[in-house]
Amino acid sequence: MALKSFIHVHPDSHFPIQNLPYGAFKTHSTTLPRLGVAIGDYVLDLSEIAKSGLFNSPLLAGSDCFLQPTLNKFLAMGRPAWKEARDTLQKLLSSTEPALRDNMELRQKALVPMSEVEMVLPMEIGDYTDFFSSMHHAKNCGTIFVGPKNPIAPNWFRLPIAYHGRASSVVISGTDIIRPRGQGHPTGNSTPYFGPSLKLDFELEMATVVGPGNELGKTIDVNEAADHIFGVVLMNDWSARDIQAWEYVPLGPFLGKSFGTTISPWIVTLDALQPFACDAPKQDPPPLPYLAEKTSKNYDIALEVQIKPSGQKDSSVVTRSNLKNLYWTLTQQLAHHTINGCNLRPGDLLGTGTISGPLKVQPLCFEQEPDSLGCLLELTWNGQKALSLNGTTRKFLEDGDEVIFTGCCKGDGYNVGFGTCAGKVVPPRD
Amino acid sequence: MALKSFIHVHPDSHFPIQNLPYGAFKTHSTTLPRLGVAIGDYVLDLSEIAKSGLFNSPLLAGSDCFLQPTLNKFLAMGRPAWKEARDTLQKLLSSTEPALRDNMELRQKALVPMSEVEMVLPMEIGDYTDFFSSMHHAKNCGTIFVGPKNPIAPNWFRLPIAYHGRASSVVISGTDIIRPRGQGHPTGNSTPYFGPSLKLDFELEMATVVGPGNELGKTIDVNEAADHIFGVVLMNDWSARDIQAWEYVPLGPFLGKSFGTTISPWIVTLDALQPFACDAPKQDPPPLPYLAEKTSKNYDIALEVQIKPSGQKDSSVVTRSNLKNLYWTLTQQLAHHTINGCNLRPGDLLGTGTISGPLKVQPLCFEQEPDSLGCLLELTWNGQKALSLNGTTRKFLEDGDEVIFTGCCKGDGYNVGFGTCAGKVVPPRD
Repeated sequence: MALKSFIHVHPDSHFPIQNLPYGAFKTHSTTLPRLGVAIGDYVLDLSEIAKSGLFNSPLLAGSDCFLQPTLNKFLAMGRPAWKEARDTLQKLLSSTEPALRDNMELRQKALVPMSEVEMVLPMEIGDYTDFFSSMHHAKNCGTIFVGPKNPIAPNWFRLPIAYHGRASSVVISGTDIIRPRGQGHPTGNSTPYFGPSLKLDFELEMATVVGPGNELGKTIDVNEAADHIFGVVLMNDWSARDIQAWEYVPLGPFLGKSFGTTISPWIVTLDALQPFACDAPKQDPPPLPYLAEKTSKNYDIALEVQIKPSGQKDSSVVTRSNLKNLYWTLTQQLAHHTINGCNLRPGDLLGTGTISGPLKVQPLCFEQEPDSLGCLLELTWNGQKALSLNGTTRKFLEDGDEVIFTGCCKGDGYNVGFGTCAGKVVPPRD
Repeated sequence: MALKSFIHVHPDSHFPIQNLPYGAFKTHSTTLPRLGVAIGDYVLDLSEIAKSGLFNSPLLAGSDCFLQPTLNKFLAMGRPAWKEARDTLQKLLSSTEPALRDNMELRQKALVPMSEVEMVLPMEIGDYTDFFSSMHHAKNCGTIFVGPKNPIAPNWFRLPIAYHGRASSVVISGTDIIRPRGQGHPTGNSTPYFGPSLKLDFELEMATVVGPGNELGKTIDVNEAADHIFGVVLMNDWSARDIQAWEYVPLGPFLGKSFGTTISPWIVTLDALQPFACDAPKQDPPPLPYLAEKTSKNYDIALEVQIKPSGQKDSSVVTRSNLKNLYWTLTQQLAHHTINGCNLRPGDLLGTGTISGPLKVQPLCFEQEPDSLGCLLELTWNGQKALSLNGTTRKFLEDGDEVIFTGCCKGDGYNVGFGTCAGKVVPPRD
């Protein structure tokens, strides 16, 4: 029989006792953020549980890791501590365990309605890296920018391509995204375009949150890489395609990306995702030995993108994709990142890159139905075709548009979900 | 008459009272790093000065900014506080001021011989960005990789090209650099090379240390950008050319750079560099309005690279260059970085890119004399010609080689110098 909480959790909820994702929150009465896990419509305040002495397992008893304003200290403790915390919390929240269930005073303090909290970034992100691991996305981008002949460079099939992203501008879901200004391609011999980006886009991604990490000069073996992944979030790597196209030769994306990256507030742990592990795609050519995994796993996480156009009440689904569409796995990404000795630190964020599925129809011949392409660049084929949105159309995002990602794993009678990762585009300031 | 300290400072010293660069240090008796300024062969311990109440200016009196283990808090306070600190310290250290000079107990505590300290990173680096602002370097790299026709992409003259670097692997001068492993280009249809990098290189750079910075969504005007630059360090952006060449299409440098970046321990303030300001090169085409400066300044900082080959006692000068060779100024770099609303934070590091001077001779026809090229890629024209080093030769760096940068401004009877930025290459671990 499925594990059940004494807290009522709606069957459609993303946050049953099987999930217990971690986040950081503020209430009107707290100044410093506190750490919590989501359970149904509540946040369980981990600082209250810790102060009550209910974390009594070997690694967590007496630790102040849940009295911190961020998860970094807990992340550094590694999987044994994460497992203890999960076991303790699943027991405490279960319908058969009286310790919390029957302690009304503690319930009052420790269970905060979600409607009363403001979620904040759950960790300090030392470095943010973004991979490019969906073959469909790589192929579509290559076809758009390089042409249909050899759209994917030969290195792509040999290593998980990535770039360093900007950590300072990673924001929590719900933060407005200010349209960036910048330069775009000149027309002919004119000076470059300068002004608000005319090609603002979303990118449907997920990102892993790094646990202990490694010392500078050491590597993490691909078969041990999972022990360095605490969990996963939804991520929108907002992109200004005009700025990006003009600036990226030869050193890659810079200001076309660094104005904002949104993550979902709840980190779903790798432990909660285990039931949804699935085989990763076969890799041809076979990966070099340092990237060859004994078991190569993806996760079956259904992803959806909705756009709520400016001034409209309703949002429209524009994309349905799945994390299992990734070519390079999360563990290959992490191991590759360290093969040169680069040190990963607790709280580092590793984006997957845009997660596109296969094109269902030829480019420029889309039906109105949602496709599996992870950004407008692909959905509108770089603005060549407008996307229909419930009576209006879009080639790129307009001010006032809200983009909402959701992600969910369907279990037997329960979900393990990510909630939403949302942001609204607003005009430039100054 | 020139300002003079009661502390004896050798005329060749980099650290007279006109300089007073900031750093962080440990001694055998301290556990947490402390903040200090260099004066001659001593470090003045700022925590002792603060505890003695000698910072009595409006912004610094009562502040705990010098009781921190890093400079970040002081950096955030901005130029008015930096000026107060400089005024106070120049007065305290001057030959005519008795407060410190005649207080033997305080001198004993606060003046620590440099030979007794270990320097550590002076700030937490939230993000590290690396520009590509030397035209000579861009032209040489373009000629090597793209060919002599149009070696520089047209965007280069319109904006300061940059990429996000890796903050976690920035290390202090003196830290060994572990040769990275990674993939290199396949030969023909073979699998890619995998192993220790065969083309390990240095890159002669400087980097600005960011002060207050800006909120996400705001910009910093190019004419106010200097108020956000606390100071400058020497930087070696070690590069594995074979890893870089294979991985960088289409997203830019990643593992070819992220194994280590060395900075000098002393941050020379922009205030100390003012006497060495000089005109920046004329820019053609003229920069777009947001990059057009009322006064466009570089700094005349003589730079030198020495290599001490493995097993040898002596080092050889291989490059003499100068910061004034930059095309895009430090202030243009900083303003451009924020034009899209990207937030800079106190302690962020902005590298200039390799600082090469003009080629004195045709490539592949170098004389033995030191040239002004800022990396081995250029000096050996990607390994096509060996560099003579006092009886031995190098195309790229070998294990045991030490690379030493120095930088110095020559004043009237004094120097404002940077000390050294050094690192030794050691073989991979594991």
